[in-house]
Amino acid sequence: MSVTLGMILEAREHLRGVAQRTGLVQFKALSDETSQVYLKTEDLQNTGSFKVRGAYIKIASLSPEERACGVIASSAGNHAQGVALAAKAFGVPATIVMPAGAPLSKVKATRELGANVVLHGTVYDDAYAEACRIQQETGATFIHPFNDPMVIAGQGTIGLEIMDDLPDVNTIVVPIGGGGLASGVAAAVKMLHPNVRVIGVQASGAAGMKASLDAGHVVELPSAKTFADGIAVKKPGELTFELCQKYLDEVVTVDDDEIAQAILFLMERGKMVAEGAGAVSVAAIMNKKFDVSGKVAAVISGGNIDVTMLSRIIEKGLLRAGRVHKLRILMKDRPGQLEIVSRIIGSNGANVMAVHHDRTDVDLDIRDAILEITMETQDREHAGRIMAALREAGFAVS
Amino acid sequence: MSVTLGMILEAREHLRGVAQRTGLVQFKALSDETSQVYLKTEDLQNTGSFKVRGAYIKIASLSPEERACGVIASSAGNHAQGVALAAKAFGVPATIVMPAGAPLSKVKATRELGANVVLHGTVYDDAYAEACRIQQETGATFIHPFNDPMVIAGQGTIGLEIMDDLPDVNTIVVPIGGGGLASGVAAAVKMLHPNVRVIGVQASGAAGMKASLDAGHVVELPSAKTFADGIAVKKPGELTFELCQKYLDEVVTVDDDEIAQAILFLMERGKMVAEGAGAVSVAAIMNKKFDVSGKVAAVISGGNIDVTMLSRIIEKGLLRAGRVHKLRILMKDRPGQLEIVSRIIGSNGANVMAVHHDRTDVDLDIRDAILEITMETQDREHAGRIMAALREAGFAVS
Repeated sequence: MSVTLGMILEAREHLRGVAQRTGLVQFKALSDETSQVYLKTEDLQNTGSFKVRGAYIKIASLSPEERACGVIASSAGNHAQGVALAAKAFGVPATIVMPAGAPLSKVKATRELGANVVLHGTVYDDAYAEACRIQQETGATFIHPFNDPMVIAGQGTIGLEIMDDLPDVNTIVVPIGGGGLASGVAAAVKMLHPNVRVIGVQASGAAGMKASLDAGHVVELPSAKTFADGIAVKKPGELTFELCQKYLDEVVTVDDDEIAQAILFLMERGKMVAEGAGAVSVAAIMNKKFDVSGKVAAVISGGNIDVTMLSRIIEKGLLRAGRVHKLRILMKDRPGQLEIVSRIIGSNGANVMAVHHDRTDVDLDIRDAILEITMETQDREHAGRIMAALREAGFAVS
Repeated sequence: MSVTLGMILEAREHLRGVAQRTGLVQFKALSDETSQVYLKTEDLQNTGSFKVRGAYIKIASLSPEERACGVIASSAGNHAQGVALAAKAFGVPATIVMPAGAPLSKVKATRELGANVVLHGTVYDDAYAEACRIQQETGATFIHPFNDPMVIAGQGTIGLEIMDDLPDVNTIVVPIGGGGLASGVAAAVKMLHPNVRVIGVQASGAAGMKASLDAGHVVELPSAKTFADGIAVKKPGELTFELCQKYLDEVVTVDDDEIAQAILFLMERGKMVAEGAGAVSVAAIMNKKFDVSGKVAAVISGGNIDVTMLSRIIEKGLLRAGRVHKLRILMKDRPGQLEIVSRIIGSNGANVMAVHHDRTDVDLDIRDAILEITMETQDREHAGRIMAALREAGFAVS
């Protein structure tokens, strides 16, 4: 069974009142004379990601007997909450197996949606194996996170909504992990509007769909390395592979640095919280991974990012953009040195954020000290000017 | 000259196509059986805050001669960008005086909007004095950040938009610094719908409007202490005081901790970036500072928060909510101790995030060591259980 336009249209009707019809908002900070960028804000979807759409359509397709046996899924993240909410809407018992190391906030959120959460093993594969075992035992229906025509039809409704809101869109950009979202959106869009370009984006450390398309058949990667956990998938599905092969114009990749910068950009300029998987489409646009022109709609697939991760991304992002700079200054450990350094930094228009003074480094001469200064600068060039001024004043700076 | 309903209605017409008609979105995470909370998302307004509304209406009211002399303002933040954008829309030259320590991102953003930015002094008062001096010299029109009927009329359009989108709203909650936003919104709402409750919220360290209302006349605070810089105002305006006295039902206060938690909550559960001033209305709702019931619309006045501040708020917020816990464990400095501690923490379902091991503390016995562990827990109670388990195993924990 494949996915038809009728299935996606039907899914849209079923989802009314269940899933949010999320907005498509113009993102001025990424728009210029030649291109206007719009964001499909699935981070504002119920449970914080698009996953509830597919899960709901899948459960809607089950017979009363199947529903009575309940549903089961394995997930460390968004799929868990999507299945839990969809099952709750039907009054169907749901069991979600999560690896024991899953973020506590996600475990809690899934439980709060009424699911029976089983913690098992340390990685996703352990949780998946346990879910299969429980499925055999209970006869519950396993809800696949992506390789299922009903799930794909549900995610495809996002494509219909974008076309409704922006009928003259030229390009739609969509994240790819296992490929459920991408194949649903691409199928919906291309069956109705074959001239609209649909571009998939993968994390370069987990580009299984791209490798599969290049090879002409489904390929499993030895590992999936990206902090964007929502798309850290080693092997796409057979069905999602077929649909992506048929309907996608292109698949591009972005690395973790590019993803982190996109998250930071969305936060600062869009006032939006996107998770790693959700930000890859914006990362691809920011880094011109394809010909960005005309009206471009980027799917922000979700916003469920751990705030501690967010905090690390902010710090790394500022360092990388040269907006925060750490200097190590070797200096004589005598009074007045810190004052001179502070004056040079201040008079050059930077703000000192933190100072760390160390005399215990074993490599140091007994009379020397290391001063570590964290300062806020406009960009790398600005930081360079300050380092030059410090060197001119006789300090050894690195 | 005071503010009439006609002025606010007129302002709405002028603002079409200039200011975003921002959305009013339901915030499910704060809604329950007895109350539904909606957010007026001025963080998504052009320049990231509501300020462009008032600035634009003020400049629209100037004569051609006045416009030719340009406009001037002093601000360390949102008002700077609001005036710059509004002036640009009219092709009017704008000078903005900012204190030299203003965040570089805001200086840059104001310059990018075409304003002539003058950096002067170290605090807002210095910048204000310099702006007055330049104003005398050039004859430019000074755009007050709040105490001006045209500015107030512009901000009042937010009240009209809320009433349009949610005609059966019961309560509107609005931040107060100088009082421009609050008096505009309260005036617009009360003149049309006297039964809708309008509640103002101030930071407890900068509650000048509340002090003034209590005293029955305008009062200047000795200081304005809050990290919510958008509402860190020592003295409300005469006009904004009069309007707040006439139209506000109540003014409540929230402290910096409550504001920080609201920012974190909006980020995690609303996927929204709000600045301190923008989050006070949500802080007041979260902490039930007034009778929260029925349909409540909270104005999120802006989203211009420094990302480094955001990162600090995340870290502090997690510590405060007991979701991140730092333990200091005194232990014998011998092999195997760390393993035992790790096992106890892990088997109790918490995640270790960082470990710091110190043998150099001067207060320590030569054979002892201090182990500092940062761990992620569900809440305070969970952390308490782990501490009890460690004590039971013979460790001195603090």
